[in-house]
Amino acid sequence: MMSEMQTKPRTPRSVLNRTLDNLASGWKRISQLGNTRVLKLRPNLPDSDLKKLKLQMQDCLESKGGEVSSRARAAGLGQAYLELNDEGRYRFFKLLAKEFGIDRGALESTARAYLENTDDPEIPETMRAVLRPPWIKLFTQFNALPSGIKFLVDMRADMLRLSKQRTGLEALNNDLKNLLISWFDIGFLDLKRITWNEPAALLEKVIEYEAVHEILSWEDLKNRLDRDRCCYAFFHPRMPNEPLIFVQVALVNGLSTNVGKLLDNSAPSEDPENADTAIFYSISNTQFGLRGVSLGDFLIKRVVADLIKTFPNLKTFSTLSPVPGFRDFLAQVLDKGYSDMLDDSEKLTLRQLLGGDSSDWLKDEEISRAAKPLLMRLCVHYLLNEKRGTGARDSVANFHLTNGARIEQINWLGDLSEQGMQRSLGLMVNYLYKLSDIEKNHEAYVGQGEILCSTPVKSLLKKTQ
Amino acid sequence: MMSEMQTKPRTPRSVLNRTLDNLASGWKRISQLGNTRVLKLRPNLPDSDLKKLKLQMQDCLESKGGEVSSRARAAGLGQAYLELNDEGRYRFFKLLAKEFGIDRGALESTARAYLENTDDPEIPETMRAVLRPPWIKLFTQFNALPSGIKFLVDMRADMLRLSKQRTGLEALNNDLKNLLISWFDIGFLDLKRITWNEPAALLEKVIEYEAVHEILSWEDLKNRLDRDRCCYAFFHPRMPNEPLIFVQVALVNGLSTNVGKLLDNSAPSEDPENADTAIFYSISNTQFGLRGVSLGDFLIKRVVADLIKTFPNLKTFSTLSPVPGFRDFLAQVLDKGYSDMLDDSEKLTLRQLLGGDSSDWLKDEEISRAAKPLLMRLCVHYLLNEKRGTGARDSVANFHLTNGARIEQINWLGDLSEQGMQRSLGLMVNYLYKLSDIEKNHEAYVGQGEILCSTPVKSLLKKTQ
Amino acid sequence: MMSEMQTKPRTPRSVLNRTLDNLASGWKRISQLGNTRVLKLRPNLPDSDLKKLKLQMQDCLESKGGEVSSRARAAGLGQAYLELNDEGRYRFFKLLAKEFGIDRGALESTARAYLENTDDPEIPETMRAVLRPPWIKLFTQFNALPSGIKFLVDMRADMLRLSKQRTGLEALNNDLKNLLISWFDIGFLDLKRITWNEPAALLEKVIEYEAVHEILSWEDLKNRLDRDRCCYAFFHPRMPNEPLIFVQVALVNGLSTNVGKLLDNSAPSEDPENADTAIFYSISNTQFGLRGVSLGDFLIKRVVADLIKTFPNLKTFSTLSPVPGFRDFLAQVLDKGYSDMLDDSEKLTLRQLLGGDSSDWLKDEEISRAAKPLLMRLCVHYLLNEKRGTGARDSVANFHLTNGARIEQINWLGDLSEQGMQRSLGLMVNYLYKLSDIEKNHEAYVGQGEILCSTPVKSLLKKTQ
Amino acid sequence: MMSEMQTKPRTPRSVLNRTLDNLASGWKRISQLGNTRVLKLRPNLPDSDLKKLKLQMQDCLESKGGEVSSRARAAGLGQAYLELNDEGRYRFFKLLAKEFGIDRGALESTARAYLENTDDPEIPETMRAVLRPPWIKLFTQFNALPSGIKFLVDMRADMLRLSKQRTGLEALNNDLKNLLISWFDIGFLDLKRITWNEPAALLEKVIEYEAVHEILSWEDLKNRLDRDRCCYAFFHPRMPNEPLIFVQVALVNGLSTNVGKLLDNSAPSEDPENADTAIFYSISNTQFGLRGVSLGDFLIKRVVADLIKTFPNLKTFSTLSPVPGFRDFLAQVLDKGYSDMLDDSEKLTLRQLLGGDSSDWLKDEEISRAAKPLLMRLCVHYLLNEKRGTGARDSVANFHLTNGARIEQINWLGDLSEQGMQRSLGLMVNYLYKLSDIEKNHEAYVGQGEILCSTPVKSLLKKTQ
Repeated sequence: MMSEMQTKPRTPRSVLNRTLDNLASGWKRISQLGNTRVLKLRPNLPDSDLKKLKLQMQDCLESKGGEVSSRARAAGLGQAYLELNDEGRYRFFKLLAKEFGIDRGALESTARAYLENTDDPEIPETMRAVLRPPWIKLFTQFNALPSGIKFLVDMRADMLRLSKQRTGLEALNNDLKNLLISWFDIGFLDLKRITWNEPAALLEKVIEYEAVHEILSWEDLKNRLDRDRCCYAFFHPRMPNEPLIFVQVALVNGLSTNVGKLLDNSAPSEDPENADTAIFYSISNTQFGLRGVSLGDFLIKRVVADLIKTFPNLKTFSTLSPVPGFRDFLAQVLDKGYSDMLDDSEKLTLRQLLGGDSSDWLKDEEISRAAKPLLMRLCVHYLLNEKRGTGARDSVANFHLTNGARIEQINWLGDLSEQGMQRSLGLMVNYLYKLSDIEKNHEAYVGQGEILCSTPVKSLLKKTQ
Repeated sequence: MMSEMQTKPRTPRSVLNRTLDNLASGWKRISQLGNTRVLKLRPNLPDSDLKKLKLQMQDCLESKGGEVSSRARAAGLGQAYLELNDEGRYRFFKLLAKEFGIDRGALESTARAYLENTDDPEIPETMRAVLRPPWIKLFTQFNALPSGIKFLVDMRADMLRLSKQRTGLEALNNDLKNLLISWFDIGFLDLKRITWNEPAALLEKVIEYEAVHEILSWEDLKNRLDRDRCCYAFFHPRMPNEPLIFVQVALVNGLSTNVGKLLDNSAPSEDPENADTAIFYSISNTQFGLRGVSLGDFLIKRVVADLIKTFPNLKTFSTLSPVPGFRDFLAQVLDKGYSDMLDDSEKLTLRQLLGGDSSDWLKDEEISRAAKPLLMRLCVHYLLNEKRGTGARDSVANFHLTNGARIEQINWLGDLSEQGMQRSLGLMVNYLYKLSDIEKNHEAYVGQGEILCSTPVKSLLKKTQ
Repeated sequence: MMSEMQTKPRTPRSVLNRTLDNLASGWKRISQLGNTRVLKLRPNLPDSDLKKLKLQMQDCLESKGGEVSSRARAAGLGQAYLELNDEGRYRFFKLLAKEFGIDRGALESTARAYLENTDDPEIPETMRAVLRPPWIKLFTQFNALPSGIKFLVDMRADMLRLSKQRTGLEALNNDLKNLLISWFDIGFLDLKRITWNEPAALLEKVIEYEAVHEILSWEDLKNRLDRDRCCYAFFHPRMPNEPLIFVQVALVNGLSTNVGKLLDNSAPSEDPENADTAIFYSISNTQFGLRGVSLGDFLIKRVVADLIKTFPNLKTFSTLSPVPGFRDFLAQVLDKGYSDMLDDSEKLTLRQLLGGDSSDWLKDEEISRAAKPLLMRLCVHYLLNEKRGTGARDSVANFHLTNGARIEQINWLGDLSEQGMQRSLGLMVNYLYKLSDIEKNHEAYVGQGEILCSTPVKSLLKKTQ
Repeated sequence: MMSEMQTKPRTPRSVLNRTLDNLASGWKRISQLGNTRVLKLRPNLPDSDLKKLKLQMQDCLESKGGEVSSRARAAGLGQAYLELNDEGRYRFFKLLAKEFGIDRGALESTARAYLENTDDPEIPETMRAVLRPPWIKLFTQFNALPSGIKFLVDMRADMLRLSKQRTGLEALNNDLKNLLISWFDIGFLDLKRITWNEPAALLEKVIEYEAVHEILSWEDLKNRLDRDRCCYAFFHPRMPNEPLIFVQVALVNGLSTNVGKLLDNSAPSEDPENADTAIFYSISNTQFGLRGVSLGDFLIKRVVADLIKTFPNLKTFSTLSPVPGFRDFLAQVLDKGYSDMLDDSEKLTLRQLLGGDSSDWLKDEEISRAAKPLLMRLCVHYLLNEKRGTGARDSVANFHLTNGARIEQINWLGDLSEQGMQRSLGLMVNYLYKLSDIEKNHEAYVGQGEILCSTPVKSLLKKTQ
C-alpha cells in the first residue's frame, strides 16, 4: 500500500508533546465543565498506578456525574497518558484491551438466543451492542479534548509502533482504525490549495512531512509553491494546520521525464496559463496514525477537477513516480536465477549495477550503455508481471493502477538523487490519468487484474536483439 | 425528552428543496469525479423505477469504477431522492430496508460458529461485519455530496416523519441515528456566540427555529442579541449557517421571574458588566433529523464556562423555564379525582381555571386570589412527585435535573403569553445550575431518582391553612 | 448633483450616538496612551465652557506631552463634542473657525516677500504652510479615535446641516471636505458584492440608506439579493459595516421598462446565467457627510467590470432611472407659458395632470390617452434641452451623461409608486452604458455640452400631428 | 532620526519588480475601466519618449474621457515607469518637476490681488489651489493602481535614492512625502501581533526587514515569535503583507542587560504569564519610501497598552538599545583632544580600544579592566551632554527621549556581536518607559532639552579615582 511506504517515519512522542502544550492551555476551559481529578501516573505505569487508572476508566465509562463531567474526566486520562513512556503506554493499552473489551459471556448467550429465534428483529441489535466494546466509548470521549482528534491519531500511531514488537493490541487497533475511518470520511475533509500565503505553522509541516522528494529549505518550499507549481492537501476541520495528505504538481508542457529538473530552484518559473500538462510528482501521507484510512485516490481526482477549472488549457494529467521496489526485485532476479530472463552478459551487467555504490556505474560509459535496455525491459516486466495477490507487486504502481491510471512511459535517468539511484536505479514512471478511461481501467485492474499500459511501454518488454 | 418537545415542527420538504439548490450548484464539481449517470425517477417511485434504483444502489455498494466514481453515483442517487414525494421516499426507504439489510443466513452461521468455538479471536470481528448492513455504507456515501451531512440529517427527518404512520423503517432509522451520533459528537462541534454581526442567512435560521418564545421580527431578534443578552449555538463544520441547538441568555441582576419583561423590546439595555445573574430563558433544538442526538447538556455547560470568562461578575446561573405538562396534569387531577389532594373548594377553583379561555380567570380577582396557593402547591407536587419511570414526568424538569440543576423557585404569573397561560397557567420555574453541586445532583437524580429542590419551594408543598 | 438628491435625509444625532457607544468602549484603550483629561461640557456650550474648550484645542495643536498624548487629548475633545446639542456644536465650529484659521498677518507678509523675490524656491512652501489652518491638524487628530473616520464624516454632516441656516462655516467645511476627498480616494476603497450572507449589522444599513426605491422589509431585501439580483457597494477599510454608496442591479433579458416588476417579491427568480442585460435600478449615497466626494462613476464602472467577469453572457448595461425634476419643470411650463411649446388642448391636459392627486388622472382613460404623447415629448425636451450651466438640468440625467452614458429609452408608466407618480409622472429613463462609447460620450457632453441620445428618443421630440 | 538609521538599505528595484507582477495580474481588471493605451518607453527615456510621456501625463491631468478613464491611463503611466532604469526614472521625475509644478505667474498675480484686498475671504482658497501643483493630482491617480499605495511608497524610495547624487527633486519629494503622511496617518493603520501563524509571505518580510539584530533563519524567526517573545507591527489596509514598522519584545524578569542571551535559540522558553518586564530589543522601519513618516512613538505606546492587557503581571517597560554613534564620538574625543576629559593613561587605553579589530581588546584582560569605567563614563557623557541642536546627538537616544523615556541603565558587554562591538563597543542602554512620567519627560526634553536619567547612570559620570 502506498500510504505505508510514502509516510516519512515520525517520532510520535515529539508530536504528542506538542499536543501536550495545547492540552495544557485548554485545560482550564475543560475542567470548568466538571470537577476533574487529574490523574498523576508514573511514566512506566507500575501496578499500583494501573489500579487507579482502571478506576478512572470505569468512571468515564459509567458517565459518573453526567456526560459533561465524564468528558472532563476523560481529558484527565488523556493528560495522564501523554506523560507515560513507551512501556507505560503499552501497559495502558493492555489494560484497555483486557478489561474493557467485549463481554464474551454476553456474546455467547446472545448468539444462543438468536439461534433459538432467528426471526427476532431485536436480537441483532442487542448483538451489535454486545459486540461494541467499552473501549470505543472511551476513545470517543477523548475526542472532546482540545485537539482531541489529533490526540487519537497520535495514539493510534503509538499503537502501531508498539505493535511491531508486542502483541495483544490487534482488536484495539482495529477498532480505533474504524473510528478514524468514520471521522475522516472524505465528506468531512477540506481540499485546500497551499500557497506561500499559508501560515508558517502549516508550511513547516509540509517541509517536515514531505516523504518523496525531501524539501531542503524554506526557499526550496517557496519554489515548490511558485506560480507554475501547485500543492494541494486535505484537512480535517479539527486539525486546521495539519495537512493529512498532500500532493505536489508541476504545470509544464509535455510529459516530464526528469524530477531533478522539476525541483531545480534556479530554473525560471513559467506562465501556468500556457501549460498543457499537470505532473503529480509527489504525494505524501502525513499521519502515521491514519494508516489504512485511504485518501490518495480522492485527493488526486479532486485536484484534477480543481486544476481543470483553474487552468482550462491543461490537457494531460500524469504522475512522475519512483519504482520503489525495483532494486529488491533485481536482486531477486540474480539470486533466484530467473534463468530464462537474462543471458550471461546481462547477468554480468546486472551484477555490476547492483554491486558498489548505487550510482557508480553511471560513470562507466560501457556499463551504462548496456544497462539502459536491460533495466528498461526488466522494469516493464516488474511492473506488468510481478504480482502481489492479483495486483502489481510495486506499491506505487498498485496505488495508481487501482485509481484507474495506466502506465504511460518509463524514463531513463529520471531521478539521479541518491535515493532515486538506490531504490529505482534512476528510473521513473509516468502513470497517466485519462479521465474518460479511469473507471474502465479501474474495473479491468481490480476485476481481472489487467494492467493497462501504453504500446511503447509494452514494446520494451521484447528483448532487443 | 426535551428535544422532542422543544423542536419547532419543520416542513422537511422545503428544507430539502433548499438543499436541492446547493446540490445543483455543486453538481458539476462532483460529476467531474466520475461518469455519473443521473437517475431520473418519477415522484412516487413506481415499481419499474424501483428496479432501476436498486441497480444503482448495488453499483454504489460494489464501488463499481472505484471509490470516487461510487461517490459520484451516490450523489446521483441523492439527487434523485430529492425529487421524490412522500410516497416515493417511503418506497425508497423500504427498498433499502428490504434489500440492503443484514444477511440473516450469514448471521446464523456465524453465531453457530461462535458457539462452537467461543475462544476464537476472529469470529466476533466477522460477526460485526455481518451485523453492519450495506445501507450504512450507502448512507456514508451520501456524505460526499455537497451539503451531504445536511442531506442526511434531513433524510432522517423524513424517516421520522414517515414512521409516524407506517412501519418497517425502525432498523434503518436506528442505524442512521447512530451514524449521526458519531458524526455530531460534541468534539466536532463549534460553540459560537451569535451576534448581530452574523450573516443574515444564519440569523434567519434563529428566527425560524426558535421554539420556546417566538421571535416576532428582525427587530425582536436584534433586541435578543443586545449587549445584555447572549445567544450561543453549536455548529457542525460542514453546516456553517445552520445552528444545531441554541440557547438564549439574559444578563440581569437577581433571578428573573417574568419572561415577558425579559423579552420587552422597549426596555433599556443594561451594562452586562454589572450583571450578577445569567438567565437561560430559551433553548431550542433545530434539526428534527437529529432527534436523539443529545447536545443540550453540553451546550449549557460550555456556555456557562464561556460566560464566566467573559463576564467575571456573574455569580448565579439559572433558567427561566416553562412547565409544559402542567395543564395536562391538572386535568388529570380533576378527572381521576386525586381525592386526597384537593378539598371541595379547591376542586371548584380548579374547574374554573381549566374551563373557558386560558387566561380569562386572571381578570376575576377572587378566583385569581384562590388560584395562586393552589397552583403553586400543585406545581411543586407535579414537579417533585409525578414521575415517568424514575425521572420527573415534566420533560423540561427532567432535562435540567438530569443535567444536575435543582428546582430553585416557582414564579407566579411568570409567562402571560397565550402559550404560557395555555400550557403552564402562567407559572415558570427557575432551575439553578450551581457548579459545585452539578455532579452530586446528577448522581442523586439519575442514581436514586432524588429531585433536588430549594427549601422555599419544598415548603410550598404544605397545604396552606 | 446626484448625491444631493439621492441621499436619504439622515438624523445625524442618532448616528453619532451609535458612534458614541463605540467610543465609550474604545475609551480605555486610547486613554492608556496618555493621561487624558476628559472635558466636561454643557450641551449648549456656554462662554465659560468655550474657554476651557479653546485651551484643550490649543494643547492638542501644540502636541503637548507628545504626539500620542495629543491624540488622546483629541479623543477627549471628540467625546465632548458628541454630547453637545446643535447650538453647542455650532459654537464649537465657530470657535474653530475664529481661533484656528489662517494667520492673515503671516499670509500678508509671505505674499509680500514672494512678490519681492518671485524666483525664491522656498517661499511657495512657506506660503502653503501659512495657508494650512490649524483646524486641519485638529481634524486629523480626531482620526485616531476608534471609529474616528466615521466621526469626521458625521461631523461634516453636522456642518452641512448647520450651514443651512447659519453662516461662517464655509472655510471649515471646505477644508474638511478636502480632507475627506483625500482619505476616501477610490484607491483606498473596497468594492464588495453584498449578499444575504453579509452581517445583519451591515444589511440593516442597506435597508436604512436605500434612497430611490424604499426597501420595505427584510424579506424585500432578501429578494433584492436573490440570485438574479446584485447589490454592490464601496467600503472604507475603517468603516467595515458602512456601505458608502451602493447600487442595485437586476439581471434580466432586454431593457426593463417598469421598476414595479423588478421589485415584485412574488415574481420567480431567474437563472442569472441566461440574462443578457444588467439593469442598474437604484444607486444611493449613504453618508450625508461625504457630499461632494464623488464615487458613483467609479462604482458603476467597477460593477460593470465585475459583472462581465461573473456573468459572461451579459451584453447590455443600462439604468432604469427616475426623472426627479420633471414635475417641477412641467409646473414651470404652465406658469411661464412656454407658449410655443403647447397648444391650448395640451395646456388643458397638462393642467389636469398636475392638479389633484398625483395619480388620479391614470384612472381617466381620456386624459390618460392624451397625456402619453404630451409627457413623452416634454420629457425628452426636458432631458435634452433644459440646462443648468452647460449640463442637463435633471440631476440624474447629468450624473449618467457625465459618466458617458446616453439616453436610450423613455418608459411610459415605468414607476407607478406614489413617489414615481409625484416626481416623474410615472416616467422612467434607460441610460445606456455602451463600453466602447463611454469616453467619447463623456468628452462630447463635458466638452461641448452635447447630450447623446438614441434615434427613437430623439424622434419623440417632434410634435405628433 | 531613528528611522533613517534603523532602516535596512533596500534595493528598490527588486521591490518594484515584485510590484510589477501584481500590476500585470491586475491589469486586465483596470483596463476594462477605460480604453487604456499602454505606453511603451525605452528604459533610459530618451527625448522622443519624453514627449509621448508628457502628452499622456497631460491627458491624465485633464481627466480626458472622464475620471475612470483617467485612472486607467495613470495605470498605464505607472506600468511604463516600472520599466525604466535609474536614468529613465530620474528623467521621469524631472519632467514632472519641470512641467507639472506650480504656475508661478498665477501665484504672483494671486499674491498681488491678496495684498490689494487682504480681507477677501476667497483669495486664500484660490491661492491654495494655485499652490497645489498638478503632480499631486498625478500621484493621487497612481493610487488606483492595484498595489498603488505600495507603488507610491516605492516611487518615493526611488526619489530619495536618486536625490543623493542629483538635484531638482526636492519639491516633488516633499509633496509626495506630505501625501504619504496623510495616507499613512496612524488612524488608518492596524496594529497586529505577528505570530508563527502568519502567512510565510508576511514573515519573510520580517526576516528581510529586521534592521537591528539580523534574523539568521526561519528557525531564528520562530524562536523570536515563541510564547515569551512578541512581535508587533503596523499595517496599512492596502498593503496587507507588508509590515510598515515592527518591534520585537522579550518578556522576562528584571531588566535584560545582554541581547545575546535574548536571542539565544537554545535557551528554554519561559511562561510569559510570570514575566514582570517587557524588553523592547529591536525596532525596524521597513519602507525606505516612508522616511519622515513617523510611526515609532505610536507603535511603542500601542504595544505597551496591548501588553498590559494581555499580560497583566508586567510592571516594567524598557528597551535594550544600541548606542550607534558611540565609536564615532570616541574617535572624535581622541582626534580633537577633549583634553580635559581624559588623562594620559585613558588616552592610551582608548587608542588601544579603537585600533585593531573591534573586539580584539576583549581578550586582553588588562585593557578590558581599564576599559570598563572609562567607556561607561564616556558613554554617559555622550548620551547626556553631546547634542545635535537641542536634542541628544545619538539618534536612538533622541528617539526614545522624545517619546518620553528616560535613560535607566548602561550595560557593559551587552552586545558582543560584531556590529555591537563595532558601533557601540559592546555597550547597550535600557531606556525606561514609565507610563506616569512619559508626558512630563517628553515636555522636559522637547521643551527645555533636559535629558532624564536614573541616579546610578548619572553617578557614572563622575570620574572614578
